Amino acid sequence: MKDEFIYGINPVMEALRGDRQAFELFVAGGGHDRRMEKILALAAGKGVPVRQREKGDLTRLCGTDYHQGVALRVAPFPYADLADVLSSWRASGENGLLLVLDGIQDPHNLGALIRSAACAGAQGVIIPQDRAAGITATVEKSAAGATETIPVARVANIAQTLEELKRDGFWVYGAADNAAAPVYGQDFTGHVALVIGGEGEGIRPLVRKKCDLLVAIPIKGGVASLNASVAGGIMLFEVVRQRSSTVRS
Amino acid sequence: MKDEFIYGINPVMEALRGDRQAFELFVAGGGHDRRMEKILALAAGKGVPVRQREKGDLTRLCGTDYHQGVALRVAPFPYADLADVLSSWRASGENGLLLVLDGIQDPHNLGALIRSAACAGAQGVIIPQDRAAGITATVEKSAAGATETIPVARVANIAQTLEELKRDGFWVYGAADNAAAPVYGQDFTGHVALVIGGEGEGIRPLVRKKCDLLVAIPIKGGVASLNASVAGGIMLFEVVRQRSSTVRS
Repeated sequence: MKDEFIYGINPVMEALRGDRQAFELFVAGGGHDRRMEKILALAAGKGVPVRQREKGDLTRLCGTDYHQGVALRVAPFPYADLADVLSSWRASGENGLLLVLDGIQDPHNLGALIRSAACAGAQGVIIPQDRAAGITATVEKSAAGATETIPVARVANIAQTLEELKRDGFWVYGAADNAAAPVYGQDFTGHVALVIGGEGEGIRPLVRKKCDLLVAIPIKGGVASLNASVAGGIMLFEVVRQRSSTVRS
Repeated sequence: MKDEFIYGINPVMEALRGDRQAFELFVAGGGHDRRMEKILALAAGKGVPVRQREKGDLTRLCGTDYHQGVALRVAPFPYADLADVLSSWRASGENGLLLVLDGIQDPHNLGALIRSAACAGAQGVIIPQDRAAGITATVEKSAAGATETIPVARVANIAQTLEELKRDGFWVYGAADNAAAPVYGQDFTGHVALVIGGEGEGIRPLVRKKCDLLVAIPIKGGVASLNASVAGGIMLFEVVRQRSSTVRS
């Protein structure tokens, strides 16, 4: 497994605060602002050595010039075991909320979805091993640190995983543009797994069949569909809304 | 004003269906699938000449290789006049819904927000002339054609514009992470203008002061905030939810 680079002020800061093993911090440029001082202090606290480099070197390491002068070499992304995610959830006694992503291709969408799931207080995110984006540095940057705070499990077979979740008491809702049931008519106060499909094709037919119910966000106007990460955010926060105490219709 | 290039199958198709003046269609590659045939038919119907080019030429024209073998040279983006947006809204007799973006920098976020506003049935999107992303080909691609279906007005001064909207009967809600009022406690059934701030700093202080109320999406977990386009989508669709007939608490 190859080491990876996390870059950008916020992702590096979150990574240094998180559990992922960090080996080296690369810094470019002279003047350090308050946030960079904080990063250096966090690195010192963890015993991570700091290397001064040219900006161009960081661009080469990160494969992009969007690194804000800071990069962290870390161990490969530590995917969670689904069994561990479920046992943590059971131990918490909380209402279940899991985000299942069936074939998201765009790393920015994947990052934004993980970020939204963390903000919504979900217990985990489930992605497939094949034919989908995995957690890369680009995903971590889009997730703005959320990959350090919410477990992401990668499974061989999403359809089988949904069966497992149903046995564990989850209701499985799939987002589908053409679904008859509007998302706003549903009761999300129990244990809920939300399935969001890939950007082009949506949820694959075999996975779709395993959903208890397909639901749609009602769309007006002349555009066919929402961005996948926005659709996921809207559904996650409809769950949050229903579970919050300040609900009004 | 320089001409622009719109690229990618969906954006080009939407552009050819829309009102924006198209001058030339550039196509790379031999075999045409059904969607490309549709594009060629639309171009023929509008009298837009078709030029066969190498893939590399399209990459140079578009400044990216994410063009899917098709690019359309079009007139500069036709921003709407705010006065026209408001008079169309008045003529429609509909409940007002406007999205005001105070300093969105990321073209993907801007595109996704315009797309969400169109999907939510908003009457228009308002962006500032300065210190913010304008409508570029990248924005149009992220908007997946929505820039052709919802008017986007660019104004000199967002704070003054909010005053104008208030005189027109709009309630102005600003999204702010640290707001005391949760978004779910509000009544969005009247005429609503939603203000979303820039990715880093949020709504600027002068604009913030013009909002009738600052509202927050309640965030759980260890991540500070949602992606700006996701936050905008959640707020827009909370308005849609409240106005839809299938509401349940």
